[in-house]
This record gives sequence, structure tokens and C-alpha cells, in this order.
Amino acid sequence: MFLSNYPITLCKLFFMHRDWWKWGDPNEVKHINDYPKLKVLLEERWKTHLREDFFPPKKFNLPQLPEKKKEQIRDIFASVYPKKISFNEDERLAVSLGKSYYDVLKIFKGEGFVSPDLVISPSTHDDIQYILTQASDNNIQIIPYGGGSNVVGALSLDANRPEIKCTLDLRKYKRLLKIDEEHLTATFESGIFGPELEKILNNKGYTLGHFPQSFEFSTLGGWIVTRGAGQESTYYGKMEDLVEHIKVATPAGTLESNPFTHDASGVNVLPLFIGSEGVFGVVTEVTVKIKKLPKNYRWVVALFPDFREGSNYLKALAQAGVKPSVVRLSDAIETHMFSKIASSEEQHGFVNDLKKEAQKLFLQWKNLSEPCVLIMRFPQGEISVSSQVIYAKGLVEKYKGMLAPATVGDKWAEQRFKTPYLRDTLVEHNVFIDTMETLVPWKDTQKLHVALTRELNKSVAFNKNKGIFLAHISHIYSNAACMYFTLMTPMQKGRELEQWQDIKTLVTDTIMQHNGSISHHHSVGSDHQKWYKKYTDPLAMEVLKSIKNKLDPKGIMNPGKLFS
Amino acid sequence: MFLSNYPITLCKLFFMHRDWWKWGDPNEVKHINDYPKLKVLLEERWKTHLREDFFPPKKFNLPQLPEKKKEQIRDIFASVYPKKISFNEDERLAVSLGKSYYDVLKIFKGEGFVSPDLVISPSTHDDIQYILTQASDNNIQIIPYGGGSNVVGALSLDANRPEIKCTLDLRKYKRLLKIDEEHLTATFESGIFGPELEKILNNKGYTLGHFPQSFEFSTLGGWIVTRGAGQESTYYGKMEDLVEHIKVATPAGTLESNPFTHDASGVNVLPLFIGSEGVFGVVTEVTVKIKKLPKNYRWVVALFPDFREGSNYLKALAQAGVKPSVVRLSDAIETHMFSKIASSEEQHGFVNDLKKEAQKLFLQWKNLSEPCVLIMRFPQGEISVSSQVIYAKGLVEKYKGMLAPATVGDKWAEQRFKTPYLRDTLVEHNVFIDTMETLVPWKDTQKLHVALTRELNKSVAFNKNKGIFLAHISHIYSNAACMYFTLMTPMQKGRELEQWQDIKTLVTDTIMQHNGSISHHHSVGSDHQKWYKKYTDPLAMEVLKSIKNKLDPKGIMNPGKLFS
Repeated sequence: MFLSNYPITLCKLFFMHRDWWKWGDPNEVKHINDYPKLKVLLEERWKTHLREDFFPPKKFNLPQLPEKKKEQIRDIFASVYPKKISFNEDERLAVSLGKSYYDVLKIFKGEGFVSPDLVISPSTHDDIQYILTQASDNNIQIIPYGGGSNVVGALSLDANRPEIKCTLDLRKYKRLLKIDEEHLTATFESGIFGPELEKILNNKGYTLGHFPQSFEFSTLGGWIVTRGAGQESTYYGKMEDLVEHIKVATPAGTLESNPFTHDASGVNVLPLFIGSEGVFGVVTEVTVKIKKLPKNYRWVVALFPDFREGSNYLKALAQAGVKPSVVRLSDAIETHMFSKIASSEEQHGFVNDLKKEAQKLFLQWKNLSEPCVLIMRFPQGEISVSSQVIYAKGLVEKYKGMLAPATVGDKWAEQRFKTPYLRDTLVEHNVFIDTMETLVPWKDTQKLHVALTRELNKSVAFNKNKGIFLAHISHIYSNAACMYFTLMTPMQKGRELEQWQDIKTLVTDTIMQHNGSISHHHSVGSDHQKWYKKYTDPLAMEVLKSIKNKLDPKGIMNPGKLFS
Repeated sequence: MFLSNYPITLCKLFFMHRDWWKWGDPNEVKHINDYPKLKVLLEERWKTHLREDFFPPKKFNLPQLPEKKKEQIRDIFASVYPKKISFNEDERLAVSLGKSYYDVLKIFKGEGFVSPDLVISPSTHDDIQYILTQASDNNIQIIPYGGGSNVVGALSLDANRPEIKCTLDLRKYKRLLKIDEEHLTATFESGIFGPELEKILNNKGYTLGHFPQSFEFSTLGGWIVTRGAGQESTYYGKMEDLVEHIKVATPAGTLESNPFTHDASGVNVLPLFIGSEGVFGVVTEVTVKIKKLPKNYRWVVALFPDFREGSNYLKALAQAGVKPSVVRLSDAIETHMFSKIASSEEQHGFVNDLKKEAQKLFLQWKNLSEPCVLIMRFPQGEISVSSQVIYAKGLVEKYKGMLAPATVGDKWAEQRFKTPYLRDTLVEHNVFIDTMETLVPWKDTQKLHVALTRELNKSVAFNKNKGIFLAHISHIYSNAACMYFTLMTPMQKGRELEQWQDIKTLVTDTIMQHNGSISHHHSVGSDHQKWYKKYTDPLAMEVLKSIKNKLDPKGIMNPGKLFS
């Protein structure tokens, strides 16, 4: 993903194998020493010194196609060659995996993943349609690649199929096609990244309002095919809600959805591509609904005596129709942890401020020994949001909470996209760190929290005495909440991949037992395949396969994903 | 539809051929003399006396299956026979058509429609699944029937197919399965009618908020498969927005959608059935999102100097995020007409009141010679809607409008479901009367209004000097508005069906030329088939056919509808 945004560092990256796998902007990369409090906390809890001695191989030696085969491929894609086709090892390596802990482990171990044989970088819809048609005629697998930021194995290639594997790198396919200010829609090519898209819209006074944590390094097309959500989706809506029209290139040809999402003109095929993870084709041109930029924000910050009260508060809020954009209710451990590690570091975050400013209140309020902090942000446009803010504040007391200084909200906003950088340095210091999430009915939020704590405490892979389990609610609906989990524990050296599989299985099994969805916004990918197959109705699966057969009869599109 | 709600009148209806085709509750049926002002208005404009001399035949003589064939059918559906199968002529006639002007014409002419050979009335999901399986195995066509209130020919049978035709009458399939107050959802069997559904929810303090004009005589399942909207859908959402989960019986078996609409667990098949018009199967169990009943309503009523200003006002409102439930901006002729006909009749409506109360203001405001009235209603729950109401009121002046007394809103609410009764007496008096609607981009609302006026004035079938064309905007989105048209003109005796076809073609062609959708909430039915096939992307159509082949390989489900 850095390729398109940071072209100057491109060459440098390809020759720095120890860095290419890292998250984000190379200039923003952090070291464990940038988080001294966290380092101390882990070292004290784990009774050890964190050692920086885990690195990826210096050389990968990816298999190369024979020259004759390359020649055949150049012929097959003659009309886009040579500018857009690459067999270069570094370029292939860079698109081999996503950005999850499991992906990084595979890179570090130098095993468990397959690289594509070539990378093609189209820049028009017609390029893409041509490539899919030729690939289908010649039985070449196509793996669409957007920002490469997926964290559930959506970019892993299927090792079990012998066909030529071609990654379709969409990062150069990213023009604005139209802003329609009269109808508040904008049409983009799907490879556009978050910051570029928002900059174009912001300059005209608009926003899409889609801000996933990967915002800087993920694409519009990626958001659609993963059914993505952003940090402000409770107000702006998920990708299910933000798209009005799409054009799609498939091996069977190009199709378009109906012009409107809200009409009565038969079945609209648009929703078939939201969450389709590239198995039907490539979503190319996307018309999104845009909104006027808010004039300002109102923050509401509150503390609750426990997670249950905070969760019940949020349920009441969602069911009353209150729509904050940002919602984040941290459990007691996450609140404590963030407070502790942020207290004297440069990018110190919100809980430190909160501690200082609210200290007096803390003392007065004796029941609040292990508070759960909630931060909420309300965008305010032409219509006042005062009634929502007043209602939200007024309801806090009913759930035994107390309001806290709202200034901490801005601190959160400054740091909102920075957390992923921390992961990489922790891995280098032999720390297991992963995040998992689900949508769960309100009745199960507290039960799932308790059950996960209990099950993790039983798990050898997680290690009760050392493992750290943090949870927060990040999106609210009238019937359900998105729960987001962060897990840290010492890496089990020699069985890193197995340790991850143990913990992933434990967490996802527990989620499923509590009526949670496979995922709320990370997607199915490879990591959730096993559960997806149980979760999805068998006849519904057959329906999806019949669509697949129609649009991709040779099965070349992203093989191994979803039901394929 | 009256069958299930008015069992006492059932027998009476079956022996009163002149009445069975009428809208709604027989006790509510109106005569032209109940609308004396309208009668005078039409007679003056048309320079004629309206004569009540057009009636349906006294007897229809529907073809009967031979006794041997009936015996075979009883065997095929052995496990639901005899209670639920009927070959009765009156029962078959009553489900032969919907409630459009064109449907009524066909009944009056005794031509142009086909009756089913039998009617089955299942009362459980398992009944329905059994019937579909048996019908598929034995090549019997199934036509699902909900409230029977469709106005675009959705219930017309395909005369070109020789198979036995069986109407599946779902009016007894209507239990509440669950109200989940913790998650604000409710699960119903799909044959439940509006009033029964709302009563169940209201008793617990909730509402679905779906109030189509057909509310009293249409079903939950019908709303879903037609992509219905209600009069308050700008706030509550269309059926696309109100359903969280469905169970569907199909010839290939039963399927269920994913548990949540907003997650990232692959492609959800739920949207495939919204607007599916019965061609894939029968939506059986439906979980809808419910809301707490509003505590009260706030009305905003305004007058604008012309339709363009009113339309621009509504666009600004929608794009600022204001969400009234009821929105109705009448053009100048509709405003005038309603004002005139309602002024001294029992069910006199709003404009009369408005006239009286606003008379002084009218005088002061000299430019308002042909005002367009806008009524809007804002439901108020736990959160104050004052900021929306204040914004909406404040914006009126910018668009050269003036606020008018808000009391007229309640008058509209009293009459909101009564208009359809008027249609039947007008037909008996040889009046052409139909309604058509579309979703159209904001840039085209005024253009479409002008173009329709112009094209209708050129049309012999419409008759410029006598024809009356009324328009209003009924739903608003940030990119588009639903425009709703009422057309009245003297019936062309001897070519009633052709006259309707001429006018329907003219209106729909003009809608299509102005980027309108096939329909915003009436559905495709038979009437829009021709345009639907041009409107829908050919490859998208192929995708829908592949789904059809999977779920209904023999093509028994509602043949002739949509792409089938």
C-alpha cells in the first residue's frame, strides 16, 4: 500500500527485506523504545527482558516462471504488456500477504504462503475487463489487490491449485470520475486510497465518512468487497449503506447495478458484491453517497463502573436512535492499560489527560475502582446535535456512570490511525499480538466478554499469567454491537503459527457460541473460512455458487475464498 | 384481502359479483355522491353528466378442471388436502387480479386475464415448503398471493403457459413468532396484514413504521417482494432497510439469510429476495427491525409559489440530513384540486382548513396565486426533534415559501388510507383514473413534471381539455425524490384497455427519458415488464436467471414475472 502513496521510498523498500512487511508509512515506523511504559509493563508482567531478535529472512528465493512461460503470459496479455506486467521477485513478494499478525508470522518463518507468479497493474476499467477475459480464456488465477491491509488472510493465495497466479494490483486505478454536487454522490475508480478520496471530497466540502483504522492504506474497492466499517460508521453507515451504484468487471463481462438502491425495480445485484471478496469479479467504478463535512464535533466522554453497565448504556442509546459517529467503550483492562502506557509517552493518548483532569472526581466516586471509559463523538452539520448530546449525557447516570472531561476525545482522534505501527515492533520483540472482532447481539456482549476471559485463562497458548486481553465496543446498532478484542502474550518460540491457530480457534469458537458474526468489518478471508462454511446456510451457499458459475465459469477469481 | 380481516362478509362477497373487485372494507365503500364537489368539478370540466353505467359481468364462467385432474391434484398435495385446497370459482376469481385500474378494467370487460385453477391456503412454513416441492415435482405453477392490493399487475397470470396454475393464498399464514424487546426485532409469518402487525407491536409500545396507502390490505411478505415503501419511509426506511433476517421456501428447499444485515461475513442473500416478486420462492418468516412508538408528532406545513421551489426546498432538506416521516409536496393543480373538492365534504381533508385559517396570510402574500402545499410530519420519541423542525421551518423562506397552519396535518392523517375507495366509484362512472410513480434524480423532478404535462397534453388518450394531471413528491433522499402522479380523464368507451396502455406507455416512456426508476414502491409486476427488461443490465439479468435456475429449476414460481 505504501507503493502508491510513497513512490520515493519504493526502491528503498524493495531492497530492505526487513522492512517491506511493516505497516504503513516507513517514516512513521516506531520502535519499542517509543513506548517505554508499555515495555516496562510487559517486562514486569512477564518477568523477562523483551529481546529484539525475531526478523524475517534476508532473502526469500521465490520460484520464477520459466522464460518460455513468461513469454506465453506476455502474449496472453499482449495489449497491456510490457508497462503493466511484472515478474519481479520483490514486487511479487510485496503483494503476497496482508497485514495480519499471522501474515507477518508467515513472512518471518518464511513458510506457509505462496507468492503470485506475476503482478499486473491496470489503470482503466477496460484494462481490467481485458485481463479478466484473457485470464479466464487461459485459465490464469486472478487475485485482486487493493491496499493490501487486510488482517484476516484475504490476500493469501491457495497453494493447492497448480494454475498460474496473477495478482491484479489496483493501486494505479484510482481516478475521480465525477463529483455530483447536486445529488451528493461521487464516482471513483476502486483503487483509490482513503486519504486521496477524502482529500478530493474535503476540498469541495464533502466527506464519505468512512474511516477504518487502515484508512491511510486501504482502498475504496477493498472496503466494498470486505463489507468494511469505519470508526465513524455508527453515524455514516457501513459500506453496505454508502454505495449507490457499481460497475463490475467479471470473466463473463462487465455488469452494472441498478441506478438506485432505494426503488422497486426488481432485484438489485449491487448487494451481491458487498462482501464478495473478489470471487465474482472486480468492482471497478463506484458511486458513493457523500455528505457535507461537519462544521464541528461534540465529544461525550463517560466512565462506567463496569463493562456491563457501559454496554447497557450503549444499547439504550442505540435504541433511542442516538447516532454518535465514534463510539468506543473500553473494558476495565483496556481502560487501565491505555491509561498506564500512555501516561508519559509522546503520543500519550487520552486516559492520561483524563486521569489528571478527573482526579478529584475519581476520589469522590468511590465505586469507580476499575472504570470503563466510553468516548463518543457527534458530528454537527447544519442541524444542531444538541438534543442527542443532551440525551446521551443525561442517560449516563442511570447506568451508574459519570461524565468525564471531553477534551480527551481530540487526543484519541490524533492517534486514531497510529496503533497498527506498534504491532510490528512487538513481533520483532517476540510478542504475540492480534486483534479480532465480531458483531454480537446485545444480550451476549457481557456473556461473550466473560466467556472469552474464562476460555483464554484456560488456554496454554494464551498463558493466563502473562496474557493480556483487552476488549471494547466500537459500533452500535439497535440489535447488536461490534466487539473488538486485542490479545497480547509472549510468543511461543518454535510454535508461533500453531500458537496463533490455537488462540484464533478459541476466540472464534467462543464468538460463535455467543451468536456473534464471523466478522463485523474484517471479512472472512482465509482465517475465517472454517467458520464461514458452518455459519452460512447451505442452500444460500449453493445460490452464491450459481452466481459464481455464471460470472466466473472457470473459477479463476480469487480461488479458495468464501465458497469457491 | 378482506377475507381474512372481514370473515363475516366473506359469503356475502362471493355472491355479490358487482362488489368483490372493489378496494378494501365493504363497509367503507363510497359512492360518487359522497364526493359532490369532485362530481361537480368533473362534470363542469367535462361538460357532461357522469353516468353510473359501467359494471363487471354478473357471471364469469371460469373454466373448471376436469374432475379427474382435480383428483390428481388432491393426490399431489395429499398432506394439506382437503382443508386448504379450493377449486371454487368465486375463490379463484377473487385472487385472479390485483387492485389497479387496469385490473378493474379487465374485470369489467371480462377479458384479458386468467384465473388460477385452484387456490391453496397454507398456514405454516412446512405447508408452504411441501407445496412448493410437490408443485415443482409435478410441474404446477405457483402464484403467491398476499394482500392482493398490488397496482402494477403483479398478480396477473401468464396466459401463455399451459401448466396448472395454483394460487398460494398466504392470508392465513400470519402469526407473530417472536417479539424480541431486548433487540428491537419482531418475527412474523409473512401473510400478516398491516393493521394486525402494527396492533401487536403497538400493544408493546413499538412500531414497524411501514404505512403504504394499502396498509390495511397488504401483507408483510408483499411489502418485501415488491420493495415497498410506506408514507413514512423517509424516516423509517423502505423494506430494504427494515428487514434483518428472512426464511424462504423455494422449490429447491428452505434457506435462511445471514443473521445480521450489517457485518462482514461474506455475501448476504437477503437482498436477493427484496423485490423478487415471488420468482425465487416464498419469503415465509421475517424478522423486522422495530422502533419505539413516537410520543407525539410535530407537523410542518408550508406553501411554495411553484413546484420547482418546493422541490429545491426538499432537496436542501434531504441533503442537510433532515428526516421527516411524512413528506408530501403537491404541485399547484393537486393543491388546487384537493382544496376545491375537499371544501364542503364530510371527509374534507386539509386544504379547506388551510384556506380558512391561512386566508389572511394568503392575501398578504401576493405572489402566491397558485400555491404548492407541502406537509411534513416529524415523529418525536425520546430525543427532541426540535432542531430538525426549527431548521425545516427556517429554510422555507429561502425558497420563497411561507409557513401555513400545522393543524391540517392531522386531517391528512385521518384520511391517509381512504383515497383508494374513490377509484371504484369513478370507474363505475366511466372515469379513467390511475396513479403512477417513480424515483427520479433531483435535477429531473421539475423537468419530468414539465415534460409529462407537455406529453399528456399532446395525447389523444389523455385528452388535454378534460384530462387532469396531479403530481406530488412523496419521499426524499439526498440524491432523488419519489414523484407520484394521479391521472383522470373521461374513459374512452370501447377502447378502455387501449386507452390505459396508451397513457401508461406515454408516462413510463417519459419517466425513463428523465432518468426515473421503473418504480419507487409499486414494483415491476406485469405492467412494467417491457421497461424493466431495458432498464436492467443484461449480465445482471443473467445473474438473476442463474439464481432462478438454482432455486426454481422447473420455473414454477410466478412465471412471467421479472426475468422469468
